[in-house]
Amino acid sequence: MSFYINHVKLNRKERSPEGAFFSEMRTIEWLSESNTVRMIDQRRLPARLDHITCSSASEMAEAIRTMAIRGAPALGVAGAFGIALDAINHEFSTISDLKRKLKESADLLEKSRPTAINLAWGVRRVMSVLECQTSISEAQQQILSEAKAIAEEDVQTNFLLAKNGASLIDDGDTIIHHCNTGALAVVDWGTALGAIRYAYEHGKRVHVLVDETRPRLQGSRLTAWELDQYHIPYDIITDNAAGYFLQSGKVKKVFFGADRVAANGDVVNKIGTYMLSLAAHANQVPVVCVFPISTMDLSIDCGHQVSIEQRDPEEVLGLRYQGEAVAPENASAINPAFDVTPNELISAWVTERGIIRPPFTQNLTSLRL
Amino acid sequence: MSFYINHVKLNRKERSPEGAFFSEMRTIEWLSESNTVRMIDQRRLPARLDHITCSSASEMAEAIRTMAIRGAPALGVAGAFGIALDAINHEFSTISDLKRKLKESADLLEKSRPTAINLAWGVRRVMSVLECQTSISEAQQQILSEAKAIAEEDVQTNFLLAKNGASLIDDGDTIIHHCNTGALAVVDWGTALGAIRYAYEHGKRVHVLVDETRPRLQGSRLTAWELDQYHIPYDIITDNAAGYFLQSGKVKKVFFGADRVAANGDVVNKIGTYMLSLAAHANQVPVVCVFPISTMDLSIDCGHQVSIEQRDPEEVLGLRYQGEAVAPENASAINPAFDVTPNELISAWVTERGIIRPPFTQNLTSLRL
Repeated sequence: MSFYINHVKLNRKERSPEGAFFSEMRTIEWLSESNTVRMIDQRRLPARLDHITCSSASEMAEAIRTMAIRGAPALGVAGAFGIALDAINHEFSTISDLKRKLKESADLLEKSRPTAINLAWGVRRVMSVLECQTSISEAQQQILSEAKAIAEEDVQTNFLLAKNGASLIDDGDTIIHHCNTGALAVVDWGTALGAIRYAYEHGKRVHVLVDETRPRLQGSRLTAWELDQYHIPYDIITDNAAGYFLQSGKVKKVFFGADRVAANGDVVNKIGTYMLSLAAHANQVPVVCVFPISTMDLSIDCGHQVSIEQRDPEEVLGLRYQGEAVAPENASAINPAFDVTPNELISAWVTERGIIRPPFTQNLTSLRL
Repeated sequence: MSFYINHVKLNRKERSPEGAFFSEMRTIEWLSESNTVRMIDQRRLPARLDHITCSSASEMAEAIRTMAIRGAPALGVAGAFGIALDAINHEFSTISDLKRKLKESADLLEKSRPTAINLAWGVRRVMSVLECQTSISEAQQQILSEAKAIAEEDVQTNFLLAKNGASLIDDGDTIIHHCNTGALAVVDWGTALGAIRYAYEHGKRVHVLVDETRPRLQGSRLTAWELDQYHIPYDIITDNAAGYFLQSGKVKKVFFGADRVAANGDVVNKIGTYMLSLAAHANQVPVVCVFPISTMDLSIDCGHQVSIEQRDPEEVLGLRYQGEAVAPENASAINPAFDVTPNELISAWVTERGIIRPPFTQNLTSLRL
């Protein structure tokens, strides 16, 4: 058994009702003694629990781009902390100099994962406190304070998401889950996986079929690892096997998160979400999408207006099986990171303020945003 | 560049119109000098071109089980040669002894891939010549001759399949292809990939999006390798990205083979075929299934009556990416090898005798089986 189990498996009795599963091991946290941000390096899981430390926005942007940190809500916190790093660790001659420099930091961070609305949201929320600042030191403190507030709110938001999502899970459910949406995707709890965990911890028996989630395998690498920690029963499946299980009648729900939700309820999420939703819909299995309100982008009419990030073909081609390359030398690949699930395939949109049922546009008003 | 390129890239002008692309390198062949069967070891491609040699039905069954040889039509030939190996290489005291022993060999071979109807078909066709035999040496020669005939017929059948399938491909088509259905799946040509190759070699420009086909990655390993040999443009995609490309409007056809086709036209094929077909159907992209008549099982009313082979979870869990395991130690997986695509999702069933359009049951009679 690897060393990290001791770090992660906290005594359940010691947990507060608000979660804090990772109370000793947050996905992302600000270290005040060094003015740096420490994050779990998610590229190394499940083999090893390593951390990386960032001391500038450019280091943070690189960590985001290479997916050392990922997950829509966590990216919001990462973006906010990225701005705070440059605010705190740079010397500025004037407040204008600070504002100009941080504008560059913001651009850099936002471009590191252009599809992730939460990243831009976190960056912009922190940047907005700059507007009326006239003192450098005051601006620095306000920015750091805002970034920390975002991290703290994230825990509370995700606890509510988990609680609301769990209300849609019945005792005995078998659930297909796509990508990773657990504590590793946020600061604690998570979105879709948080709901599954909440249901399980409140006595509902669940079994999770974990979509491995090619190309980066966040399902088999991260979700399976989290489920191990929570003692929730699971089996990993290939993404393309989900249809087989949905046809079987044994799967009762499909759960996933969102990277962006358009004004009509279309969901931009990890590649594969669309095909999974189609197969669930064809077999009358409810499709549940769990996300914080910050994921909604009401400026976008429908999902197809979102520009889809194309990632390095090496993510597709670089696998090895039994020591052998799995693609010819010089093979080419196309690697879109997200797809669009039309709103008509979705049965419930779960937010921290409540659950929206179809039709999305009409029922969105019930949240009183 | 690896050594095998020289073996495989024949001069196009030297090819006969019947194909013979692999004239110096058949997927599977009987070696008369040693009474053994030599096959390309498909587990090693694309990294290396190795061959394995079998001298008994049990060795052949092991090669089938471990997928050194795979592909529905090739399995028919493998099953037939498996029987011939035991017929030729054993000493028999009586003709009854021979028949009893070969019955055991047939059982062993059929159980090595229970879903593959062609395997059972090849085994049974060879076994059927035994019925009226009274001489051991005559029986041995008849069996070997029948097995060789199956291999030769396979080349001709697949050439016709390729030609018929190619008639559904238009100049400029982008085609999504699932699993491997090329020359490596048969003796030469192949089924769905044979059709694409035939179209390309007759002047139609095509671009293939190669589903990598988890868990065993026959798409990225074998189909991409074959396309390299044929100089056909392609890009590898993850299986779960097919929906994204189908939504884009740029994909004009979906092509795949079949492991078994039921009397109602339901197709049992490599896991993932169902989700791919659903996504194509939802986007009005024609779904073309190419298979020899021997793949049809009219004794089965619908696809869900077929028992689906469950394979080793290690095929799902055993990947490595950047040197790291992609699943937690002791993770569990479920690994169904096939799924069922309902006939209503299929636009055309291509056989060596012609193309069947929906409704399948009604139009099947046009083939005059």
